[in-house]
Amino acid sequence: MKAIQVVGYHEKLQLTEVPAPEPAGPFDVVVKIGGAGVCRTDIHILEGQWAEKSGVTLPYTIGHENAGWVHAVGGAVTNVAEGDKVIVHPLVTCGLCRACRFGDDVHCEQSLFPGIDTHGGYAEYLKTSARSVVRIDEALEPADVAALADAGLTAYHAAAKASRRLRPGDRCLVIGAGGLGHIGIQALKALTAAELIVVDRNSDAVKLALTIGADHGVVADGTHVEQVLDLTGGHGAEVVVDFVGEGGATSEGVRMLRRAGDYHVVGYGENIDVPTIDIISTEINFIGNLVGSYNDLCELMTLAAQGKVRLHTSKYPLERFQDAIDDLEAGRVRGRAILTP
Amino acid sequence: MKAIQVVGYHEKLQLTEVPAPEPAGPFDVVVKIGGAGVCRTDIHILEGQWAEKSGVTLPYTIGHENAGWVHAVGGAVTNVAEGDKVIVHPLVTCGLCRACRFGDDVHCEQSLFPGIDTHGGYAEYLKTSARSVVRIDEALEPADVAALADAGLTAYHAAAKASRRLRPGDRCLVIGAGGLGHIGIQALKALTAAELIVVDRNSDAVKLALTIGADHGVVADGTHVEQVLDLTGGHGAEVVVDFVGEGGATSEGVRMLRRAGDYHVVGYGENIDVPTIDIISTEINFIGNLVGSYNDLCELMTLAAQGKVRLHTSKYPLERFQDAIDDLEAGRVRGRAILTP
Amino acid sequence: MKAIQVVGYHEKLQLTEVPAPEPAGPFDVVVKIGGAGVCRTDIHILEGQWAEKSGVTLPYTIGHENAGWVHAVGGAVTNVAEGDKVIVHPLVTCGLCRACRFGDDVHCEQSLFPGIDTHGGYAEYLKTSARSVVRIDEALEPADVAALADAGLTAYHAAAKASRRLRPGDRCLVIGAGGLGHIGIQALKALTAAELIVVDRNSDAVKLALTIGADHGVVADGTHVEQVLDLTGGHGAEVVVDFVGEGGATSEGVRMLRRAGDYHVVGYGENIDVPTIDIISTEINFIGNLVGSYNDLCELMTLAAQGKVRLHTSKYPLERFQDAIDDLEAGRVRGRAILTP
Amino acid sequence: MKAIQVVGYHEKLQLTEVPAPEPAGPFDVVVKIGGAGVCRTDIHILEGQWAEKSGVTLPYTIGHENAGWVHAVGGAVTNVAEGDKVIVHPLVTCGLCRACRFGDDVHCEQSLFPGIDTHGGYAEYLKTSARSVVRIDEALEPADVAALADAGLTAYHAAAKASRRLRPGDRCLVIGAGGLGHIGIQALKALTAAELIVVDRNSDAVKLALTIGADHGVVADGTHVEQVLDLTGGHGAEVVVDFVGEGGATSEGVRMLRRAGDYHVVGYGENIDVPTIDIISTEINFIGNLVGSYNDLCELMTLAAQGKVRLHTSKYPLERFQDAIDDLEAGRVRGRAILTP
Repeated sequence: MKAIQVVGYHEKLQLTEVPAPEPAGPFDVVVKIGGAGVCRTDIHILEGQWAEKSGVTLPYTIGHENAGWVHAVGGAVTNVAEGDKVIVHPLVTCGLCRACRFGDDVHCEQSLFPGIDTHGGYAEYLKTSARSVVRIDEALEPADVAALADAGLTAYHAAAKASRRLRPGDRCLVIGAGGLGHIGIQALKALTAAELIVVDRNSDAVKLALTIGADHGVVADGTHVEQVLDLTGGHGAEVVVDFVGEGGATSEGVRMLRRAGDYHVVGYGENIDVPTIDIISTEINFIGNLVGSYNDLCELMTLAAQGKVRLHTSKYPLERFQDAIDDLEAGRVRGRAILTP
Repeated sequence: MKAIQVVGYHEKLQLTEVPAPEPAGPFDVVVKIGGAGVCRTDIHILEGQWAEKSGVTLPYTIGHENAGWVHAVGGAVTNVAEGDKVIVHPLVTCGLCRACRFGDDVHCEQSLFPGIDTHGGYAEYLKTSARSVVRIDEALEPADVAALADAGLTAYHAAAKASRRLRPGDRCLVIGAGGLGHIGIQALKALTAAELIVVDRNSDAVKLALTIGADHGVVADGTHVEQVLDLTGGHGAEVVVDFVGEGGATSEGVRMLRRAGDYHVVGYGENIDVPTIDIISTEINFIGNLVGSYNDLCELMTLAAQGKVRLHTSKYPLERFQDAIDDLEAGRVRGRAILTP
Repeated sequence: MKAIQVVGYHEKLQLTEVPAPEPAGPFDVVVKIGGAGVCRTDIHILEGQWAEKSGVTLPYTIGHENAGWVHAVGGAVTNVAEGDKVIVHPLVTCGLCRACRFGDDVHCEQSLFPGIDTHGGYAEYLKTSARSVVRIDEALEPADVAALADAGLTAYHAAAKASRRLRPGDRCLVIGAGGLGHIGIQALKALTAAELIVVDRNSDAVKLALTIGADHGVVADGTHVEQVLDLTGGHGAEVVVDFVGEGGATSEGVRMLRRAGDYHVVGYGENIDVPTIDIISTEINFIGNLVGSYNDLCELMTLAAQGKVRLHTSKYPLERFQDAIDDLEAGRVRGRAILTP
Repeated sequence: MKAIQVVGYHEKLQLTEVPAPEPAGPFDVVVKIGGAGVCRTDIHILEGQWAEKSGVTLPYTIGHENAGWVHAVGGAVTNVAEGDKVIVHPLVTCGLCRACRFGDDVHCEQSLFPGIDTHGGYAEYLKTSARSVVRIDEALEPADVAALADAGLTAYHAAAKASRRLRPGDRCLVIGAGGLGHIGIQALKALTAAELIVVDRNSDAVKLALTIGADHGVVADGTHVEQVLDLTGGHGAEVVVDFVGEGGATSEGVRMLRRAGDYHVVGYGENIDVPTIDIISTEINFIGNLVGSYNDLCELMTLAAQGKVRLHTSKYPLERFQDAIDDLEAGRVRGRAILTP
């Protein structure tokens, strides 16, 4: 089959022919790829940023946001069958450790991450596990939802955690209305009656936010902290969900957080650097957010099927992977770039 | 009545004669002081560290850890009567704002803090509110429990929040077995079946910790991070309660925290300074902790009455306040210094 | 002032002239009534059903769903001022007991219930407490929201408790789309992304439900249990909110509840009568629901101001109270009957 | 191997020779039995009470409380190895349905229950799943803990759920200090600082309760409801855990439950039969409790290893199964009867 592989760091990806995967273990599932999201992390992989952390051996196939159709299953698989339309949870988890037994898949003690530390989905077929495939509604197409498998799942997970404490009259401040942020906004809108305030440097992103659920949009032009404080009676928001995490977002974000508030860290880059006396005197919390669980992905697929979460995509045939990468690097992709068969 | 007042920053406290307070508002309660805790914060006040923050006008009476007997009550007070033995919650709260209506007293929108921003308890009598007095068990004496009003309440509050997620088999790491820490350890022991690991620089404090509930004691001698990792199977503790918050405690503490763990910030001094990528990739949380609520203080008084939380005190007659301050500064106080009538 | 009073059980209400109330205690608030809801409970009071339980002395003024404008306040009131537009929480609570200190007002150990056990709001003025008045948005009118003070607050409270466990893909079954039910449906729609299934005997009520948020409407025609099971894959709903509680609703409701589900009891009349073996083998829960707290009422007023919860009302001048009662008894009131000045 | 089988209802169990089980599926685990608990349910099975519900085909091997050593494993098993000392969770679950993915094993959509609907542990070997075996501490012996696998796990599960809302000063009433109850009392003591009040008809059971953690013991002699109300200031207990559920226990239990309290149903036999008006006017909850999850069993094994939960057992060689059954029926077993190799 065709596969797009990393053959060396700081080198271009290469299209190559490799044997198609087959179920080896009893819980293996082979998925015929219908869509594979092209993510900024893929560029970081090529730059070698993940080389040490993942420990992957080159060459290998990248692509960690995948959806398609079940092609073949191992002997013990009972939850999907050949032909089922599925989205693929990014992790392959053991199902036996304490974290897995609590449904907290992402903290599995021995998970694999296809596309990062083993073969991924820039290919015709992907091998994953019965524990990682979620059947999707007939009305959804793999290429349309593939990018929800990782970026969207992370945004949903944070939104769902954040919404658990939000009540009518509370304000939730979303920092960043880009790739993750605009999924997060739609998820928050579906999950909570709290008022949503969205801040972004890009005025088009702010406009988009207002059409998909934001109650207030604020362009980050230097006056935004004051504007958000004005919108919140001078107190700040009960919850901040920060999809940026760099360029000074966190120190500004903390200024817009109310006493006893929750600061959800999703985007990353800079340090959280806050005096402990400020943390205790206002009794605020910083909440880490990684990608969501399998059940989170099921819930996100429900929202997608209900039309409550939508994603704009730009599709490229698999062979045009280099165009997709180039467009992403050049900022020419609207929404999410997806490789299709 | 006699009162010990701040007459100027960087000056000594002065014993002076002032009019005894009387109930003015309908919910006022005047307490005859049976014990007033001498706290390191009192020394910081004299150094002027709180001058700007509190905005208090000098001279004023300090002392924010108080217990005694109800002496007089305003016309609308129904929960206590003259002669009742009480401990005094450190804040006087409005009872009408949204935080108060949720029982979250410490985030009251217009609270007073006697001893910090208005007259406190280094005196014969203290004026507080019906909302701030907790009747204590007949078996308890005001001078014995006064220090639980603020330092102990903070430790209890953090322990109670921490214990809500702890289950048998989990490990809770306590950093610091001093004033707050040794209350926290006793509270954790009462509230959870999790294993308690205590780290302190002082080997005597570690020994004490082992007698009041710690399952493991570790002296912070440079090998302590490794020791704690060994005690937790290399994973770190599910929960860290940090009563130190300075001198590098937080960066060490994070290394001893397990994935998906909670880091409770109680002690303060340095900054929490952690890369956002570490926060999201391990999905850890930093939880701020301020003093506890009125109901928290009721619960702590229950534990005290049951003998589950004990405090060592060194008592000084009110007139010997300077000795208490001097002993505290010189590190000569064992347990907590208390001024008594 | 004019007041409508109960002068004897099984007798008609009487319009009479009584002294207008004035603030006596420091936290008293006198409200000029803008709207007083006429509730079926008022009819039960006249029938003597509450005589023993309330212990009220006749004659007294009834009316427990009130809104209006602050007319006068006691000396310690800081949260409202003369002229403020307010809705009145049905209970006057002490603010000092443990339940009040947790924000759990309805379990106050010494509350009053104006209109039930002391003078209520079928009058020109009502005396209540600072703890019971919620300022409402300028866009709302007292006569339009008065009925949310009790009936609406109960429905909101149950909906908010129910929604805490509901996730996308879950089903919430609402039994009864009448007075409380149609508020509950709107609240659930605002608070959760779960699918809402509504069952009612009245096909008009079912039609209304579909216009205000229900995803599925089922007329209770004898096949409804089967229909709901079909809509839920044969499993039943994760949550049932039962606004009926009589006429066999509860035994049917339990058949439509999924394993590990929550059955919210709101309406009343018959007994919950279920074998313990069924409760344990399916591990279901029965959750009681009383009227909401003060903060619940604030949240409901936020939803009302946002237009997310609307109530249909039929207004009657205060003097025409007997028409309102007669229309209610005859089933001629559309929505809720409200007495206005 | 030897196995004790049900050969007909209302007939005696028979010792017979059957082929020893071998791993067939990839996750199969064969356990050499070290102890198999003899439970009252086994007697009910013989009486035919479970015939229809379980749908099991006779003859089959009973025994659902098992512990021992791993004897052989399927090809995909990674969490245990031959020779490991294990206790066996009573259910074999799929690991793939939504309930399993939340860690809520007991609501698995396609579970097996060895000893009830397939071959159990009154035998030399038992076939179960990798998902059902929990490694136990070296200090524990299978025959000593086997009865914790089902009866103990149910009691622990209820105690853990109950304790989540209990705070210092709250009262937890335990009804029944027999087989499940005395495990529940020990678990509650380990998990909560609340006051434990234990009611039982048997004064010896009450005495035992006082030695293992009860703060107050009350013999159910007709005055017990009054006694419990006296012990709780007339209010009743915040939480009731009812291990009896028959003979009038539930109606008495509700009288001893405080407003806003939780009534945990564990024992069964009679109906919960309570007017909905009582449920809503006091806002109480009835909480169902089935056996615990896999993680619950891990936690219980931690408490057992720490000596916080102990079980008295009477051991019988496997061949003397009839003596064990006879002694159980005659009330001659102290603690729990266990069959050993």
